[in-house]
This record gives sequence, structure tokens and C-alpha cells, in this order.
Amino acid sequence: MASIEILTIGTELLLGLTLDTNSAELGRALGAAGIAVARRTSVGDDPAAIRDAVAEALARTGTVICTGGLGPTADDVTKKVVADLFGMPLDFHHDLWQGLIDRFARFGRVPAEKNRSQAEVPRGAKILPNRWGTAPGLWLEGQQGVAILLPGVPSELRGLLHHEVLPRLLSRAGGGVIRSRSVRTTGVPESTLAQRITGIEQVVAPLSVAYLPGLLGVDVRLTAWNLPAAEADVSLAAGIREVVARAGEWIYGEDDADLAAVVLNLARGRGMKLATAESCTGGGVGARITDVPGSSEVYLGGVIAYDNAIKESLLDVPTALLAEHGAVSEAVASAMVRGVTRHLGAQLGIAVTGVAGPGGGTPEKPVGLVCIAVAVDEEVAVSRAVFPGDRAEIRTRAGQAALNRLRQMLSRHAS
Amino acid sequence: MASIEILTIGTELLLGLTLDTNSAELGRALGAAGIAVARRTSVGDDPAAIRDAVAEALARTGTVICTGGLGPTADDVTKKVVADLFGMPLDFHHDLWQGLIDRFARFGRVPAEKNRSQAEVPRGAKILPNRWGTAPGLWLEGQQGVAILLPGVPSELRGLLHHEVLPRLLSRAGGGVIRSRSVRTTGVPESTLAQRITGIEQVVAPLSVAYLPGLLGVDVRLTAWNLPAAEADVSLAAGIREVVARAGEWIYGEDDADLAAVVLNLARGRGMKLATAESCTGGGVGARITDVPGSSEVYLGGVIAYDNAIKESLLDVPTALLAEHGAVSEAVASAMVRGVTRHLGAQLGIAVTGVAGPGGGTPEKPVGLVCIAVAVDEEVAVSRAVFPGDRAEIRTRAGQAALNRLRQMLSRHAS
Repeated sequence: MASIEILTIGTELLLGLTLDTNSAELGRALGAAGIAVARRTSVGDDPAAIRDAVAEALARTGTVICTGGLGPTADDVTKKVVADLFGMPLDFHHDLWQGLIDRFARFGRVPAEKNRSQAEVPRGAKILPNRWGTAPGLWLEGQQGVAILLPGVPSELRGLLHHEVLPRLLSRAGGGVIRSRSVRTTGVPESTLAQRITGIEQVVAPLSVAYLPGLLGVDVRLTAWNLPAAEADVSLAAGIREVVARAGEWIYGEDDADLAAVVLNLARGRGMKLATAESCTGGGVGARITDVPGSSEVYLGGVIAYDNAIKESLLDVPTALLAEHGAVSEAVASAMVRGVTRHLGAQLGIAVTGVAGPGGGTPEKPVGLVCIAVAVDEEVAVSRAVFPGDRAEIRTRAGQAALNRLRQMLSRHAS
Repeated sequence: MASIEILTIGTELLLGLTLDTNSAELGRALGAAGIAVARRTSVGDDPAAIRDAVAEALARTGTVICTGGLGPTADDVTKKVVADLFGMPLDFHHDLWQGLIDRFARFGRVPAEKNRSQAEVPRGAKILPNRWGTAPGLWLEGQQGVAILLPGVPSELRGLLHHEVLPRLLSRAGGGVIRSRSVRTTGVPESTLAQRITGIEQVVAPLSVAYLPGLLGVDVRLTAWNLPAAEADVSLAAGIREVVARAGEWIYGEDDADLAAVVLNLARGRGMKLATAESCTGGGVGARITDVPGSSEVYLGGVIAYDNAIKESLLDVPTALLAEHGAVSEAVASAMVRGVTRHLGAQLGIAVTGVAGPGGGTPEKPVGLVCIAVAVDEEVAVSRAVFPGDRAEIRTRAGQAALNRLRQMLSRHAS
């Protein structure tokens, strides 16, 4: 199996001011392609440190992917340092410069003089065209090995990685793959899930099994290590079937499945339209739904009824109901979902009202208490739960729980 | 200045399945204490790779903090490898084992046989008591330098770092701190900003200057390296004043400032209430606003008018206007903001309508086109822009731009 190193460059990484998501993105993509990452390193925007780290990585594995330090400002030194190491002078490329001018023009701007450095290329390096930003990727190859320079902006890194870097690396590598598949559960604790599928490790061997708990639920991941691609796929498919057979009721999807997309698909299949009424989530459920491309086929919109007066005026929640039960109550959630589906003309509804904190909690209604109502046609189901975590976590968990309630209700309805 | 390296250990880090938040936590805490992190490295649960990485780090800086690989399972090899490197045999400590038994008993359990390895200590190493979990931290000191071994569980790492490791490191180091301050800009490209404040590096020296572009704008960060704390604070304050004097119009806040919180503060100061009308952002602007604790004092709520019928029914956007200009138009954005402020009884309004993609673009209205209207009392300002990026990025940029427009308009109004 081919092996490689990752070097991420930026003083903000050493200071801990930026999370190194690029290393993780590269690790996942390379692993999926069967390329083992032997080591990852971060250094600051310091020419000597960058040079040493690149030279050491090349000495160990012969191939290094570097991210960061390709921007137009004075602290962007990666290209110069690595070009020096490979003994390549920098040439100004007029076509790259013209491309930059064109790109800026699309956004009604002109590049600054400083941007000219982004049109410089180490002599003999391959240019990896960057359709996602201004700094092209660079592929330097010499007796030292291969150094691949990518920008640190995550979307640009991702685009270049998948469209330019992986195809080139794969054409050089051979053999087995590292491949994973997952099922995604929500609304069930890790320990309960593990108890239900206990002994699965022996059944799915040689696949490895990992439990990955997060804010949105617990994923169960199976991984094939360095198997031929076809064999990995067959083992993983069988393993996933085994997990689904044991824990299917809690599973809303596989791999990268998004619960909002699952709900939208169920609704689309039934020809139903969806509306939302949100208090404590403040638009977060709508935002999650509309993150899904094509959501406009199903989602009509919603009301963010943050202030109680809006619950009355836009959702027809009776003043007396608010006074009697309080805004965070199953009765109000129920009235909210009825109000929003009626006003927007939707067959499906979600309503969320809760105490996200940090203030506003009482002994009866503590921080984390969330009431959720979902509607399918005339049927309304209401529930309450107390979620752990800080304000952001409570809001995320509440949104996920609300979507899951609607998924469960829709799944019970014949399509 | 004292300098140190960080080594995080775990195959899941190389595969990108776990974000390396421990490195960031260590970087922040060490930087705040004036200890520079020269490099951070991650390797897998592989004895040879761990040994090499520890030895190299010690050769460079003399001190390395290692996290991970101290658990009870077969892939936890850090302690054995580093003890070998220091030539220290492992001794079984009965008092540690009894502590483990007591700790398990508090949760009604007994430790397994494989937990016994967690009671083994390299001969001569200092034990750093772990009140937050089962594996103690270890401080190994020899002619090779200092190796500090900490568990990888974030809460245990944090506890040991602040209570055991930093006090010991600080008693060995002397003097200065590493301290950063930033200003946050939005709506201006990095190169334009850099051109405006060109030469700032010389003016603020010995502070370093870094540009940090992101989806929300460009931050300019000044860092004092190894200065006495009081001197660092004075230099940083003067440096920030210099940046503000040159680029103040683009700056919405400092350090961790959130633009939504800035807008809420401006509105609160003027005793005004805010409402939102969102199409392409689908609730994202409301969600950002309500991420801010206490937003309910200012924010009434909003309408997510994703479907055009909702723009008509809940926001009174005239059918003819939609037909003539299309939903993504300055005219419709303007009508949306007037509708939502009127219906919700707000003095301040934000409306966003755009083409978030990936579908729906036309030559006249490409993906990324967003029309924004903001209102302060009777005054409405409308603008349009084409944002780069994918669907999620376009939506994030649109929300940030909308908040910034309202900030600019509020700033012009006397408070």
C-alpha cells in the first residue's frame, strides 16, 4: 500500500486558533483511496520550519501533501520555500494572471498587485487548476520526491483534492483499499445500541467496528483494511445488512445520510408539503431542511415565532393557552404546528419550543427542556425531552429530534 | 522563549475520522502561558512511528507532550514505547491499581484484567494524578529531554494540562507570554485589505501580522511573541488602534466578535426590534441571530418564505411584482423586508432572496446571485451581489452580508 505524509502550514494551527479540518479531510479521502497517511505534521508560517518538515517527510515516504501558505500576503511563503528545496525558480505565468483577472471580474472586482504572486509557478511544476478560488494547486516532482501544494481554504482544498490530486495519486498506486461504511442512528444512547448489536465484531470480522457518538446521534462504522476493492465491498454490504437486521428501528440512513434529506424524500414520495414553526431553534430547522438541494419541491417555509406575540399573531396560538401552559409546553407546540400547517397550506408540520439557555430555566422547566410537535395531515404527535449540552448543542439536538419524530410518523404512514 | 512540540497519537487521527481538537486545546493553553509550540505531529498506534516521532521531537526542542494511547486496550502502546526510549522499565503500582478499583466501584463496576496495564509506571517517572479518568498522566525526564504523556480523552487532557502540566512547565520557563488580538472585517477581499494596510508590519513590529480569510470575512491578527505580559498588552492595543485607523470602515469587531451579536447590540442600544424574511437562506439568518444568548430582547422572529406563495401570503409581496421581476430581485427583497417588519411590528428588518444552487441559475440570474434588503424604520436599502462557493457557502456569505448591511445602516443612524 502506498504511503504519504500530510503537512499543514499556518501559525494559527500551532496556536490552536484554527482546527485542522484539512488534515482530517485529506486523511479520509486518502484512506478511502487506499493510500495510508503515515504521519501528519503542522508547522507555522516560518520558512525554515516549512523547509525542514517538507524535507523530512520526503525522506520518509517520498510524497507529501502541503496545505496553506499559498495566499497573496507576506505570510504566505510555502511556494517559495518548496520551490527552493526542489531547486526550481519561480516563473510568472501570464495566463494564470489573466485567469485571476477574469475570476475577480466575475465578482465585479480587480485583483490587487499582491495577487500577482499567485500567478508564479515553480519551473517544471504541474499546475492543478483551481476552479474554486485564486491559488492554483502545484505538483512538484524531483529527485527529492513529490510535493503537492494545495491552498488552505477548505472548499478549494476539497475541489483540488478530488478533481486533480486523487486521480493522479491513484494512477501511481496499486492494490488494496481502506473502505468504510456506516449506519446512522439517532435517539438511542451508545450503550443501548452496543448492547443490542453485541457480538457484531465477531460476525463481521475481518471488518473493524467503531461506535461514533455525536450531537446528531450514534454512527456505527465498519471498516475494511487493505482488502481488494471488490472483496471490501462485499464484506461491507454483508456487515451493514447484519447491523440493520439487529438495530434497524433506530437507523435513519447510511454513510453521509442527512436526516433532513431523508424526511424530504419521504415527503416527496407521498406528494406532501412541509412547513415549520420554530421558537428556541430560531430558524435552525428551516436552515437544515433548506441545506438540502431541491428542498423547495417539498418545503414551503415557516414561521420563526421567537417572541410570544408572534406565536399569537402568525400562528394563532391562543393567548390563554400561553398564559396557562407557558410557551414551552406540549400544548403550545401542538398549537404551533396546527397554526403553521394551516397558514402555509402544508400537510406536514414541525414545531419546536424549548429552553435553550443559558438563562430562562426553572425547576419545572429546566434549560434543555424542549417540546416538539409533528403533524401528518390531521394527526399530531407531541413529545418532550430534556437535552444535555450548551445552547448550541441543545438547539442542534432539538432540531434532530424534531426531524426524527416526523420521519418516524411518516414511516408509519403507508406511502 | 521556551519551545515545545505536540505529538497526538491515534490511527483515527491519520484517517481523519477524529478531529484533532487536543492539539488545538494544547496550542491555546501553551500559547497563553508563553510557551511556543514549534511543531505538532500525529502518528498512528504504531510503536515504531511513535518512537521515531518522540525521539525527533526531543532532539529538536527537548520537550514533547504526547496525547493518546494510554488506555487499557491492545492498541494503547504509548507508555511502553516512550519508557523504552528513556530506558525505564515499567513497575506495577499497587496504590494506582487500588485507585482504579475504587473509581470503578463508584460506578458500580470492577476493572477488567486488561486495566492493570494502566497501573504500570516507568521507573523514575512522575505520576500526574488524573481525577477525571482512569489513566494517570506521566512526566518522564532523562538525558533525552522531557516527555509528558497525557490521555487522549479531551476532558482528562484538559484537567491534567491545567492542574498538573502547565504549573510545572511554567516553573521551568521564564518571562514572556504569547498573546494575540484580532480585528474582524467582512465584505472586503484579503488583497484589497492588505493593500489598504500595507506596511503595517513595520509599524506594529515586533508584533507579527497575519491575514485569516474565511467564509465570514478576513480577520487580521496581531501576535506578541514572548513579551512581558504588560508590554504585550500595550503593543497589541496600539497595533489594533493602527489597524482600525486604516481599515475601520470594514471592521465589525475584535477577537471572537460575532456579527449577529454586534447587530443585536446596536439594535438594543437604540431600543429597536428586529424581524427577518428569508428565502434562499431558509432560516439561517434567524438561526445565527438566535445563536446569541439574550437575542430574544431584540429579535421578534421572522418568516421563512421559501415558496413564492408564502412570499405573497405572509409577506404581502404582490403577485405582479414576483411575475415582473422574479423572486430573486431587489424589488422583491424590498417588498419582503417591508412585509415582515409590518407584520411583526419591528423597526428593523432583514430580507434575503437568492439563487443558492446548485440548480436554478440562469445567465441573467446565476447561482450565487443574492438580493438583500435591510430596513431601519422607514428607510430601506437594497443591494445585490454574486457570491462564490457551493450552496452552503453562498448561504453563509449571504447571511453575513445581510447582517453587515444592517450593521452599516444602523451605524449611520445616530444612537
